[in-house]
Amino acid sequence: MRLDLSTWQEVEEYLKNCKGIILPIGSTEQHGPTGAIGTDALTAKSIALAVGKRTGVYVAPVQAYGMAEHHLGFPGTMSLQPSTLLQLIHDLVLSLAKNGFERIFIINGHGGNISTIKSAFAQAYSTASKLELPVANSLRCKIVSWFMTPEVLREARSLYGDKEGQHATPSEIAITLYLHPDLIQKQCKLPPPAKSGPIYDSQDFKRRYPDGRMGSDPYLAKPEHGKMFLDKATIALSTDLVNFLKEL
Amino acid sequence: MRLDLSTWQEVEEYLKNCKGIILPIGSTEQHGPTGAIGTDALTAKSIALAVGKRTGVYVAPVQAYGMAEHHLGFPGTMSLQPSTLLQLIHDLVLSLAKNGFERIFIINGHGGNISTIKSAFAQAYSTASKLELPVANSLRCKIVSWFMTPEVLREARSLYGDKEGQHATPSEIAITLYLHPDLIQKQCKLPPPAKSGPIYDSQDFKRRYPDGRMGSDPYLAKPEHGKMFLDKATIALSTDLVNFLKEL
Amino acid sequence: MRLDLSTWQEVEEYLKNCKGIILPIGSTEQHGPTGAIGTDALTAKSIALAVGKRTGVYVAPVQAYGMAEHHLGFPGTMSLQPSTLLQLIHDLVLSLAKNGFERIFIINGHGGNISTIKSAFAQAYSTASKLELPVANSLRCKIVSWFMTPEVLREARSLYGDKEGQHATPSEIAITLYLHPDLIQKQCKLPPPAKSGPIYDSQDFKRRYPDGRMGSDPYLAKPEHGKMFLDKATIALSTDLVNFLKEL
Amino acid sequence: MRLDLSTWQEVEEYLKNCKGIILPIGSTEQHGPTGAIGTDALTAKSIALAVGKRTGVYVAPVQAYGMAEHHLGFPGTMSLQPSTLLQLIHDLVLSLAKNGFERIFIINGHGGNISTIKSAFAQAYSTASKLELPVANSLRCKIVSWFMTPEVLREARSLYGDKEGQHATPSEIAITLYLHPDLIQKQCKLPPPAKSGPIYDSQDFKRRYPDGRMGSDPYLAKPEHGKMFLDKATIALSTDLVNFLKEL
Amino acid sequence: MRLDLSTWQEVEEYLKNCKGIILPIGSTEQHGPTGAIGTDALTAKSIALAVGKRTGVYVAPVQAYGMAEHHLGFPGTMSLQPSTLLQLIHDLVLSLAKNGFERIFIINGHGGNISTIKSAFAQAYSTASKLELPVANSLRCKIVSWFMTPEVLREARSLYGDKEGQHATPSEIAITLYLHPDLIQKQCKLPPPAKSGPIYDSQDFKRRYPDGRMGSDPYLAKPEHGKMFLDKATIALSTDLVNFLKEL
Amino acid sequence: MRLDLSTWQEVEEYLKNCKGIILPIGSTEQHGPTGAIGTDALTAKSIALAVGKRTGVYVAPVQAYGMAEHHLGFPGTMSLQPSTLLQLIHDLVLSLAKNGFERIFIINGHGGNISTIKSAFAQAYSTASKLELPVANSLRCKIVSWFMTPEVLREARSLYGDKEGQHATPSEIAITLYLHPDLIQKQCKLPPPAKSGPIYDSQDFKRRYPDGRMGSDPYLAKPEHGKMFLDKATIALSTDLVNFLKEL
Repeated sequence: MRLDLSTWQEVEEYLKNCKGIILPIGSTEQHGPTGAIGTDALTAKSIALAVGKRTGVYVAPVQAYGMAEHHLGFPGTMSLQPSTLLQLIHDLVLSLAKNGFERIFIINGHGGNISTIKSAFAQAYSTASKLELPVANSLRCKIVSWFMTPEVLREARSLYGDKEGQHATPSEIAITLYLHPDLIQKQCKLPPPAKSGPIYDSQDFKRRYPDGRMGSDPYLAKPEHGKMFLDKATIALSTDLVNFLKEL
Repeated sequence: MRLDLSTWQEVEEYLKNCKGIILPIGSTEQHGPTGAIGTDALTAKSIALAVGKRTGVYVAPVQAYGMAEHHLGFPGTMSLQPSTLLQLIHDLVLSLAKNGFERIFIINGHGGNISTIKSAFAQAYSTASKLELPVANSLRCKIVSWFMTPEVLREARSLYGDKEGQHATPSEIAITLYLHPDLIQKQCKLPPPAKSGPIYDSQDFKRRYPDGRMGSDPYLAKPEHGKMFLDKATIALSTDLVNFLKEL
Repeated sequence: MRLDLSTWQEVEEYLKNCKGIILPIGSTEQHGPTGAIGTDALTAKSIALAVGKRTGVYVAPVQAYGMAEHHLGFPGTMSLQPSTLLQLIHDLVLSLAKNGFERIFIINGHGGNISTIKSAFAQAYSTASKLELPVANSLRCKIVSWFMTPEVLREARSLYGDKEGQHATPSEIAITLYLHPDLIQKQCKLPPPAKSGPIYDSQDFKRRYPDGRMGSDPYLAKPEHGKMFLDKATIALSTDLVNFLKEL
Repeated sequence: MRLDLSTWQEVEEYLKNCKGIILPIGSTEQHGPTGAIGTDALTAKSIALAVGKRTGVYVAPVQAYGMAEHHLGFPGTMSLQPSTLLQLIHDLVLSLAKNGFERIFIINGHGGNISTIKSAFAQAYSTASKLELPVANSLRCKIVSWFMTPEVLREARSLYGDKEGQHATPSEIAITLYLHPDLIQKQCKLPPPAKSGPIYDSQDFKRRYPDGRMGSDPYLAKPEHGKMFLDKATIALSTDLVNFLKEL
Repeated sequence: MRLDLSTWQEVEEYLKNCKGIILPIGSTEQHGPTGAIGTDALTAKSIALAVGKRTGVYVAPVQAYGMAEHHLGFPGTMSLQPSTLLQLIHDLVLSLAKNGFERIFIINGHGGNISTIKSAFAQAYSTASKLELPVANSLRCKIVSWFMTPEVLREARSLYGDKEGQHATPSEIAITLYLHPDLIQKQCKLPPPAKSGPIYDSQDFKRRYPDGRMGSDPYLAKPEHGKMFLDKATIALSTDLVNFLKEL
Repeated sequence: MRLDLSTWQEVEEYLKNCKGIILPIGSTEQHGPTGAIGTDALTAKSIALAVGKRTGVYVAPVQAYGMAEHHLGFPGTMSLQPSTLLQLIHDLVLSLAKNGFERIFIINGHGGNISTIKSAFAQAYSTASKLELPVANSLRCKIVSWFMTPEVLREARSLYGDKEGQHATPSEIAITLYLHPDLIQKQCKLPPPAKSGPIYDSQDFKRRYPDGRMGSDPYLAKPEHGKMFLDKATIALSTDLVNFLKEL
C-alpha cells in the first residue's frame, strides 16, 4: 500500500489496526561508469513497495537523497550533509509519531546512510521523550539495508564471488536492469575495478576509485538476477518487518 | 532525461553543453478526504519529467518531503521543519554547484515550501560565496510552482470558479487522477468545504478546515483536466526554464 | 504605544484587552549611492509607530538587521544569514507567545526578509505546538510589507512610473527624506540605473547593479512624497491590523 | 556618525581612514514596575551615538533584542536564546569583516548579553580564519558595557549607595528619564526591593524578584543624573574606543 | 605518550615523523546495579594509553561523555544528544587536521557512540574539503571499539558464554575491577538479568532492562580477566593502528 | 566521591540527601614551550576531586576539551567551537536535571570556557523551563574558575608578581608539576615572555605570543607551590560549593 496514494482518512482507519510504516531511503550518487545515479533509491523503493504489498503495511515515499559526501567528486551526485540527514529523519519520525505510528521501518539502499540514520533514531527518541509525546514510550525505529540481508549476500557471493565489490555492485545494478530494461544498453565491459578499500574524503575516494567502482564488476549483472535479488530481499525483509511489528 | 537513470559520465558530458538541472519537490501531506497524500510530489514529479523531456534538461529525483507542519493534525502527513528543509535545499544546491551546475530550477508542488526554499537559496549563495566555489559567481536558483503559472490559474478558474479553493484543489487532484486512474474510485461527493482562509498552527488549521480542504471541491476534478493541466504547466514552465538558461 | 517606553505592568494590563503587537523589521544595507543604509529600518519603524498610534496597539522595537546577504558586496551592509533570521523571529514570537500575545503583526521594510520570516512563523507554530504552550492554538503571525500595499504601489507608479524600480526606490527614499531632512543633501542626479532583474549571489548582484540601484531613480523622491507614502501605508496597514485582530 | 544615515559610498570612503565601527546592543525586557522595557537599548543607543559623535567613528543601528531568557516571566520581555544571539553577533561581525571593518566595538546595555557576545566573538574569529577572509588576521572585537565603566560605577555608588542594585538600577533608569522625560510620570515610590542575588531560571527569577527589581530603588533616579551618566559613560568609552583603534 | 603531558613544541617535533593520534572516547552512564558509571571511559582510556605506549603514538585525553540518551532513565547517566556528539567529534578532528594530524584513531568504549562518530567523520571530511584544508585530501579517521575486536569477543564468549550479554558485560566490568580494585566490593550476586534485546527510547529501555543490565552477569568478572582483556585489546588495536598508519 | 566509580543505585540513594554535583572542565591546548597541553584539565580535575572529597559531593568526569579556538595556531591544541561547547554543557546539565540533580557546580580550569559556559546555563534553563522539567524551577548552575579565587590570586601575586602572566602561568604549571613530577624535567629557563594583552583570532594570538605564553614565567613554578595552590583552591571552592548547596 502506498501512503502517497492514500487519503488521510484511510490512514486514520489503518492506524486502528496497525502502527507500522515502511520508509524507503536511497541516495543520488555515482554508481560507476555504467550504473544509474539513482540506483540506491530505485532499489530501496522497489523493495519497499514489494514488502508493503506482501505485508499490507504502508509504504511512505522514497527519500531519494541521502548522505553521499564521499561521492561528491563525481558529477550528478547530490548529497545531504550528515547533520542534515540526521535532522530530516528526526523530523519524519516525529511526524509519524505525532499521528500515532509506533513502528518505523526504514528500508535502506545506501551504506553511507546507515550510521546517520541510527543517530537520528536516538535523536528522535530523545525529542519524543522530552516532549512527552503519547507514543514516546512505544516508538520504535529500525533500519534494514536490503543488500545486507544474509539471503542477498549469499546469492551475490555465489553469482559474482569477489566481483560483487562494495560499490556499484552487480547485485544492485541487476535490480535496476530489471526495473528499467533501458539501462541494459549502458552496460559494457569495463577494465578491472580498483580494489575495495576504506572510504574517507571525496577527493581521496576519487583517487582510490577513479571510475567510482569499489572492487565490482557490474557487467556481470543480469536483469533476471535483479528479479531474484528483489524477491529474496522482499521475503527476508518482510519477515523482519513482521517480527518487528510483533515484537513486544 | 532522468538524472537517476544516467551515469556520472553522462552527466560529465552533459555539463559541457548545459549547466541546468530541474529539481522537483513536493510534500507528503493530507489532501482532503478524497485526495492522495502524495499529491504534491506526484504532480511536481510528473510535470518536471515532462519539462525535462521537452527541454532536454536533466531532472533530478523528486524530493517527496517538504514543509507541511500545518497539516500535522492529519495522519499520514510527514513534514520537515522549516530549518530542516532550508538545510536540505542548501545541501542539494551546493552538491550541484560543486560539480559545475549553475542553473537550479526547482519545480514545486506545494505552497508551504516556497518561502523556505527561497530562504535556502540565499543561504546557498552565501555559503558558495564564502567558500569561493568556482561557480559561486554564476550560481542561480529559481523556484517555480506549477499551480501558480498564469495558464494553470486561468484554466482552473474557468473550470472550477471559486471551487478551486486553496488546498486539495480540483486542479491538483485532477493531475493525480490522470496519473493514477485508481484514485478515481476514492472520489466522492463531499459536503461544502470550509472557506479558504489563513494558515497558522496545525491545530488551528484542523479547526478551520476540519476535513483538510480549504475551499475546494475536488469532486470536480476529472482525469482529462489533469492531462490538460499537466500539459499547460509543462509548456509554461518549459518556457520559463529556457529563459532561465538563456538569462545573462 | 511604544513597548520600549512601557513597563511590564502596563503590558500585563494591556494584555487583558488586546493580544496584539506590532514588530517592525528592516535591514541595514546599501540603498544606492544616495540612499541611506538604514532605509528599511527607518521606514518600517516610522510606519509601525504611526500604525501603533492609530490603532492603540503596542509597537515593539525595530529589528534593524535582516537578511541582506545579496547586498554584502557593498560596504556598510550588515546581514543575518537566513538560518539566523529564522531563529531570531522564532525566538521573538515565542517570547511574546509565552506571555500571552496571540497576534504578532510584523511590519516589514525589506523584500529580502519576507520568505525567511514566513518560514520562521511555521517554525514558531511548530515549537509552540510541540511545547503545548497555552496559546499554541491561538497564536497567529502575519507579515506585511508596507511597500507592497496596493495604495503605496499605486501612488509610486503614478509618481515615478517605471523609475520606481525594485531597490533604492524613490518611494522608500522619500520617506527617509521626510524623516531625516538632512538626507536631502545627499540626493543628486544619477546616471540611468541598471535595469531591474533577478537577485542571486552578492557578487552577481554587484555585477548587475553596480551602484546598488535596481531600476530606480531615487532623485525623484521628495520629502512630501515621503509623508504621503507614510500616511498611505499607515492607513492601509492599520486596516490590515484591525482586521487581523478581529479575525476569528 | 550614524551608519544608517550614510550611503555605501560614504562608508567606502570612510574605510580608507578608519576600520572601526560601534555596534550598540540592548535588550527588550522588564525593568521593574516603573522602568521602561526598552531601557537597555535606549541607553546603549544614546551612549553609542554620543561616543560616535565624539570620536567620529560610525555607529551601527542598535540591536534592540538580546538575551533575556531569565526575564521571560514578565510580559513585554522579548528574548533571543543564547544560541541565537551567538549566531546573530557572528553574522554581523562577519558582514563587517567582509567589507573591511577590522575593529568592532560593541557598546552594551545589558549584563545578560555579555557572555554570549564574547562567545560569539570567538565563533566569528574562528569562521573568519577558516574562510581565510583577508581581514581574518586583523579582525578584533571588543564589548564594553557602559554600566561597568569605573566612572559610572563610582557615581552610581556615590548617588545611590546600595540602592543602585543590580537590575532596574537608578543609573540606567536615570538615563531613560533624561532621554524620554515622559517616563518621569511613571516613577513612583516603591516598596523596598528584593535583595540582589543570583540569576537562574525565569521562574526562579520571578520568585526571588517578584516585581522585577534586584535590590534597586529606581525612584532615586533623576533626569539630571541621567545626563551625567550619559556624559561619563561617553567620555570613558570614547577613550576606550580610541585606545582600541590605536592598539597594535 | 600522553598528549596532555606533552608540550606543543614536542607535538610539533612529533608531527615530522608521525601524523597519527589516538583519541579515546567513552560514556558516562549506568552499568547495572554493580558496575561503575564511568566504565566506558575507564576502559577506553586505559586501552588507549596501553596502545599508545606500545606504538609510540600520541594519546589525546579521553572524551568521557558520549551518546547515552537511552540510559537517561537511570540517575548518574550524563548524555550528549547525537547532534552534539557529531559536532564535538567534528570539531576535534578539524582541530587536529588544522595542525597537520592526518590519521585520527578513535578507541571507543561505548556501542552507542559508534554511529554518531561515523557520521561525524563524514561531516569532518566534508568541512575539511570545503575549506580546502591542506590535509583535506589525506585526512583519515577510524573508530575501533575494543569490545568488538575478535580476540576480545572470543575470550568473552569462552569465559562467560551468553552471560556476557550486551550491556554491563563481565568483560568491561572486569577491566574496571583490574584498574580500580576498590570496585570489587560493589560486586555481588545478582538475579538473572533481563534478556538482551533491542534499544529504543530511554523509558522503553528501563522497562525492558529494569536494573540496567542487558543479558549480562557482571558477577562473573574477575580483575585478572580484566588484565587479560586489556592486554588482548591492546595487542589487537595496536596492530590495527599500525596498519592504519601504514595504509596507502 | 567519583561519579564514574559509583553505580546508578548509589547515585539514586545519594540524591535523597543531596542534589549537588561537581563537573570539572578544562581544555586541551598549548601552555607555552614547557607547559603540558592538558594543564587546564589536569588542574580542574584534581581540584574537583579534592573538593569532592572534602565536601562529600559527587564529582563527574572531567570534560577535557573546551573552547580553545585562539590556541589553534599551536599543534596539539584541540578545541570545540563556542556553539559546540554551548550545546555540550546544555546537554550535560539537562541530563543531570532529568534525574533530579539541582545544583550543578562547574569547576573550570580555562578562562576561554567561561563565557560560553555561562551562555550554556541560560540555554539549559530555557530548555528545562520550556519542557517543564520537574526541577526546572529549582535548577541552578554555577561556574567557578579555580585560578580566579582570591586566595589563589593573592598567593600567585605574592610568589610571582607580574610574572604570573595570563596564560601558561606559573600557578597552573606548578599544580601540574605537583601532580606529575615527570613534567619537571621539561621546565627550563625561557626568554622573557611576550607581554600580556588581548586575545583575538588564533593567528593574531600567535603573532602576539609567539611561544604561547602571555606574560608568564612558568620556570618559577615549583611542585610545592602546586600543592599549596591546589589546597588553597580546594578550600576556597569547597566553601563556595557548600554555600551554593545551602543557598535558598
